[in-house]
Amino acid sequence: MNKALVVLSGGQDSTTCLYWAINEFGRENTSSLSFDYDQRHKIELESAKKVSEIAAVAHEILPINTFSALGGNALTDNIDVADDLTVAEEINNTSQLPNTFVPGRNLIFLTFAAAYAYQRGIKHLISGVAQTDYSGYPDCRENTLSFLEQTLRLGMKYNFTIHTPLMNLNKSDTVMMAEKLGAMDAMAYTHTCYNGEQPPCGHCQACLFRAKGFAKANRVDPLIEPFQFFKN
Amino acid sequence: MNKALVVLSGGQDSTTCLYWAINEFGRENTSSLSFDYDQRHKIELESAKKVSEIAAVAHEILPINTFSALGGNALTDNIDVADDLTVAEEINNTSQLPNTFVPGRNLIFLTFAAAYAYQRGIKHLISGVAQTDYSGYPDCRENTLSFLEQTLRLGMKYNFTIHTPLMNLNKSDTVMMAEKLGAMDAMAYTHTCYNGEQPPCGHCQACLFRAKGFAKANRVDPLIEPFQFFKN
Repeated sequence: MNKALVVLSGGQDSTTCLYWAINEFGRENTSSLSFDYDQRHKIELESAKKVSEIAAVAHEILPINTFSALGGNALTDNIDVADDLTVAEEINNTSQLPNTFVPGRNLIFLTFAAAYAYQRGIKHLISGVAQTDYSGYPDCRENTLSFLEQTLRLGMKYNFTIHTPLMNLNKSDTVMMAEKLGAMDAMAYTHTCYNGEQPPCGHCQACLFRAKGFAKANRVDPLIEPFQFFKN
Repeated sequence: MNKALVVLSGGQDSTTCLYWAINEFGRENTSSLSFDYDQRHKIELESAKKVSEIAAVAHEILPINTFSALGGNALTDNIDVADDLTVAEEINNTSQLPNTFVPGRNLIFLTFAAAYAYQRGIKHLISGVAQTDYSGYPDCRENTLSFLEQTLRLGMKYNFTIHTPLMNLNKSDTVMMAEKLGAMDAMAYTHTCYNGEQPPCGHCQACLFRAKGFAKANRVDPLIEPFQFFKN
């Protein structure tokens, strides 16, 4: 009866979390949820679907048309995505937020996930956010999510727990965890590139961090193989 | 520079709050935001627009298509709305939630309002929620909103304040406040009925509480006059 819902972007981190949840709660108790928010990189929804198929868990996609109506950010609009690793590393040292910051995106994702979970008797919510590496995003941090958890518990009168297994891991730790949990088959289909390119652009923040993580973990990124999946 | 944003449903309470904000922050610093979330009572968006016109503040409508995709509640689906006052009053005494409960609705509204405000340098968010009367909704309560405020501050790195001027008022207090703030002209165009009917159905929870409030305050509901507005 301990059911779990993974917020699945179709990327490396949330895919690792999906396997974490399967390991923790059992495959039959785990499902995944993705959001179609008019992201520039819609290809990640294909990844999320494929990853869920490989993991053999139920998967649904909920639409959110509000972010594109809000506008003003690089993930839904035609604003250039910063492609310099230095910029990304500066984020944690300054108060400047990256131009991929969609205000409140993770708060919204988790709140809608909670609403979806509430209707299905699911109390465990899993998110792949991490406060290490390139997360200049304040809604990915531990204290934010701790307050959000309490807000959701009170606001829906339901005893949710938000799990963030990657919160304090760096990208190479995540690679090792994914390997240990048997997530590498699914990893081959994940999508990371901020520019939504396939093959990945290789120079955006997300691509650079992913490459760095695999390199540091001394593992070959399985993503290299199945490009034909994305080409079809 | 103290700019304020009122989450305006087009109903009696949020309209009163709009005038509260004008009084508190000045008309030139106040704007209003409504949500088109495929509510059954879309007529309230017409009310919100008209109320903002009368109050002479800028007004915008943001779409949210997620609630109807989530389904399962009387405010967006074709489920009968409970029309018995007793049911409503029982809510505060039991753990049962009304079938108009959209899980997390106010959390989502305020989070999107915060994202909108963030982009415009607005730090004050005003919501017409109240924990008195018929609010069986846990996301209308003071402690929920206090945690949400902290979540938004942390999650967007921005010093928001959520104001809830009606939190501990009953409906007749709200009527008196509206009168004192000069909101009665606008009040004539507000929409309350949960069944989305115009003239109001008169027997849903919202209609009954509104009528009770005006009766207790010894005031005539100005809504009676301008039915022709809604007929056009």
